[in-house]
Amino acid sequence: MVSRQAARLLADTPAIAEAHFLAEAEPYDPDVRPGGYLNLGTAENRLLWDLLDGRLAALEPMTESTARYAPLHGTGVLRERIAALLSATCRTPLDAEDLVVISGATGALDAIASVLCDPGEAIVVPAPYYGAFDTDLGGRSGARILPAPLEPGDGFRLTADAVDRALKQAAAEGTTVRAVALSSPSNPLGEVHRPQVLAELLRVAAEHDVDLVSDEIYAHAVFGPHAFTSAADPAVNPHWADRTHLVWGFAKDFGLPGLKTGVLHTRDPRVRDAARAMAYFAPVSTATQHTLAGLLADPAWVASFLAAGRRRLGSSYAHLVAHLDAYRIPYVPAEAGFSVWLDLRRWLPGAGFEAEQRLWRELFETARVSILPGGAFRSPEPGWFRLCHTVEAPLVAEAVRRIAGHLGGTPADALLAPSLPSPSDPNGRRP
Amino acid sequence: MVSRQAARLLADTPAIAEAHFLAEAEPYDPDVRPGGYLNLGTAENRLLWDLLDGRLAALEPMTESTARYAPLHGTGVLRERIAALLSATCRTPLDAEDLVVISGATGALDAIASVLCDPGEAIVVPAPYYGAFDTDLGGRSGARILPAPLEPGDGFRLTADAVDRALKQAAAEGTTVRAVALSSPSNPLGEVHRPQVLAELLRVAAEHDVDLVSDEIYAHAVFGPHAFTSAADPAVNPHWADRTHLVWGFAKDFGLPGLKTGVLHTRDPRVRDAARAMAYFAPVSTATQHTLAGLLADPAWVASFLAAGRRRLGSSYAHLVAHLDAYRIPYVPAEAGFSVWLDLRRWLPGAGFEAEQRLWRELFETARVSILPGGAFRSPEPGWFRLCHTVEAPLVAEAVRRIAGHLGGTPADALLAPSLPSPSDPNGRRP
Repeated sequence: MVSRQAARLLADTPAIAEAHFLAEAEPYDPDVRPGGYLNLGTAENRLLWDLLDGRLAALEPMTESTARYAPLHGTGVLRERIAALLSATCRTPLDAEDLVVISGATGALDAIASVLCDPGEAIVVPAPYYGAFDTDLGGRSGARILPAPLEPGDGFRLTADAVDRALKQAAAEGTTVRAVALSSPSNPLGEVHRPQVLAELLRVAAEHDVDLVSDEIYAHAVFGPHAFTSAADPAVNPHWADRTHLVWGFAKDFGLPGLKTGVLHTRDPRVRDAARAMAYFAPVSTATQHTLAGLLADPAWVASFLAAGRRRLGSSYAHLVAHLDAYRIPYVPAEAGFSVWLDLRRWLPGAGFEAEQRLWRELFETARVSILPGGAFRSPEPGWFRLCHTVEAPLVAEAVRRIAGHLGGTPADALLAPSLPSPSDPNGRRP
Repeated sequence: MVSRQAARLLADTPAIAEAHFLAEAEPYDPDVRPGGYLNLGTAENRLLWDLLDGRLAALEPMTESTARYAPLHGTGVLRERIAALLSATCRTPLDAEDLVVISGATGALDAIASVLCDPGEAIVVPAPYYGAFDTDLGGRSGARILPAPLEPGDGFRLTADAVDRALKQAAAEGTTVRAVALSSPSNPLGEVHRPQVLAELLRVAAEHDVDLVSDEIYAHAVFGPHAFTSAADPAVNPHWADRTHLVWGFAKDFGLPGLKTGVLHTRDPRVRDAARAMAYFAPVSTATQHTLAGLLADPAWVASFLAAGRRRLGSSYAHLVAHLDAYRIPYVPAEAGFSVWLDLRRWLPGAGFEAEQRLWRELFETARVSILPGGAFRSPEPGWFRLCHTVEAPLVAEAVRRIAGHLGGTPADALLAPSLPSPSDPNGRRP
């Protein structure tokens, strides 16, 4: 028999992980396994390895002192270097003492949720949102996640009004809300939140006396015309900095998801001490911290790596949407992140989220393409899907071809099909 | 403001970690800092690095696939190799599917406690015990730890009777107990539990219908005449295997505490699934898993490494007790582990655990030796201290000299002092 807290967690296991490993077990290969799975369900950036491996191989190996006990909220050197990087990104000096290094962004989200909430208290999250937030923020803390639905007609753009409405409704229902959480840039939408929207959101959080948790794990994955603005930027956050908590990690911007290294930034000393106490249960291997500190040691290399990553992301996005446009598959334009939010509403084989599940299952089992249904992101409306394009370009092209084939579409101008664009890359990379 | 669950954790932060980092900040050095701290408080094995570093340097570097998402309860290859190692150690075949790799033995203890207990339920632990059990087992799960006091007159030997008494008392008080937990070999005592005692303990657990959590992180650190017996060994556990959960890790036997890699073995499918769900929050870096899988790849190397480790431990122990004997400082003889349980009762400057705290503080501040007071191990009686000897022999000698000096002692035969033994090592290592 397992405890009630374990049983609740078991009932809640994220579906995303399951589809990922199924698809990875039998991957598509044009020669060996042409009918294999195309995994465009996982937000993994596979466009960066050639930029990383030489650099990783050149790092100093682990030493005796690397292998010893170190502060469980992160080594001083890694925290200093992350602080330097994020201070530039957030346009405000971050203190290494305010950083807690922990096992993945999941660990950081779990820590801040558990520090802010007791079981039954709530966190408001604009929806659609990264589906694993339910588990990451609520699974161990016992917090309830309350979606603040955004408007499909508006491309699900973030508005402070939507959050305000959700907070007021929670208050009317007698629910204690401790925080608003969001991903910024957003996942699944790839929206870069504008300074004005962030400023309004922070004003709403202050009015309702709730903290803000800003998951900025895609902070450097911006390829659109609008620069990233952090929720900690004093230009948008002059008064609520002590109640604003940032999450970041190496999974997305550095394409190192297996290394499970996340970080929480918080300025409130008591929250920080409590988050350190949480990190005691989920520390990061000192060998991995040593590797990552080495990766950050040369700011010029980091800047050029991140810039190259942004260029490749932009090319990958342009390549994807050219294919979507050719097959007339609609989507919400993205400016950041690894994914595009597809609008497959017109192809739903019925009404409601059951129809969405049916289409998702058909795409997975028949077309053998793994993309994720909007329901997994608590979409306010069925028919939307998240497709991640950060894999080799031919896989993206094949996936769109299969999806379109399944939906009954052909390229808008069939004559154009053979000359569909492949991604141009300023670094001359041809995946 | 932080949540009640965070506040409880903050109130509970283990004192062990604090003393460790204070002592490490100003370490003793005979030339540079002769008045520096001698840290014999931390159970860190510093006798192994020369055996490890060549092997670590020869391992294959991280590859692209190493850096990707992997099953969050551990890569298949690492679990297979740990299963092979522990199957031999435990004298029963362990299935890699029953292993959950997680961030440190702390993570494994937190996971099993959270899976078995809801807040307010209890775990019985024979005392004295590894002080961090309070946090590891109770900090996040909300479980209460009930000590089962062992007998000072008997050298605090483990008995099933002591556990039976604690379980009966808990039942009489209406407390729901979910498990008995212990370290085996024991920490702080270094006792290798005999098969008969383990069999009786398992019978008591079965009678009371509670699970057994056996923390076997020192399984390979046995230097005495009695071989290690696992609680999973069918010879002692013919009927309670599904309710027996093992914890192990690389911190002690492999001297790699910074790598924070622990493992839980459990045969109950529902407990295992729940533990996997817990591992989602505290996974180990795939780069570190890759390193550790490489380390285990050659069973002959592993066997010879572990044998050398045991020989060095035995030498280190013999060296320590020769010094203790020379200064007539009494202790409980050990057969395993990194520490010796010192009996300083006659030097307590008063009564009770306050006097023990006072002596501890004096030893730390005046003699600048960090050893840990028995109170940190929930000792049933004040006056006992844990000293870890797994550092360079001259540091151990200096520490005993300083402790004895502070207690007012001189070598039993002053003429012998200059020829106090230094450790002989079959590998010719002279630290």
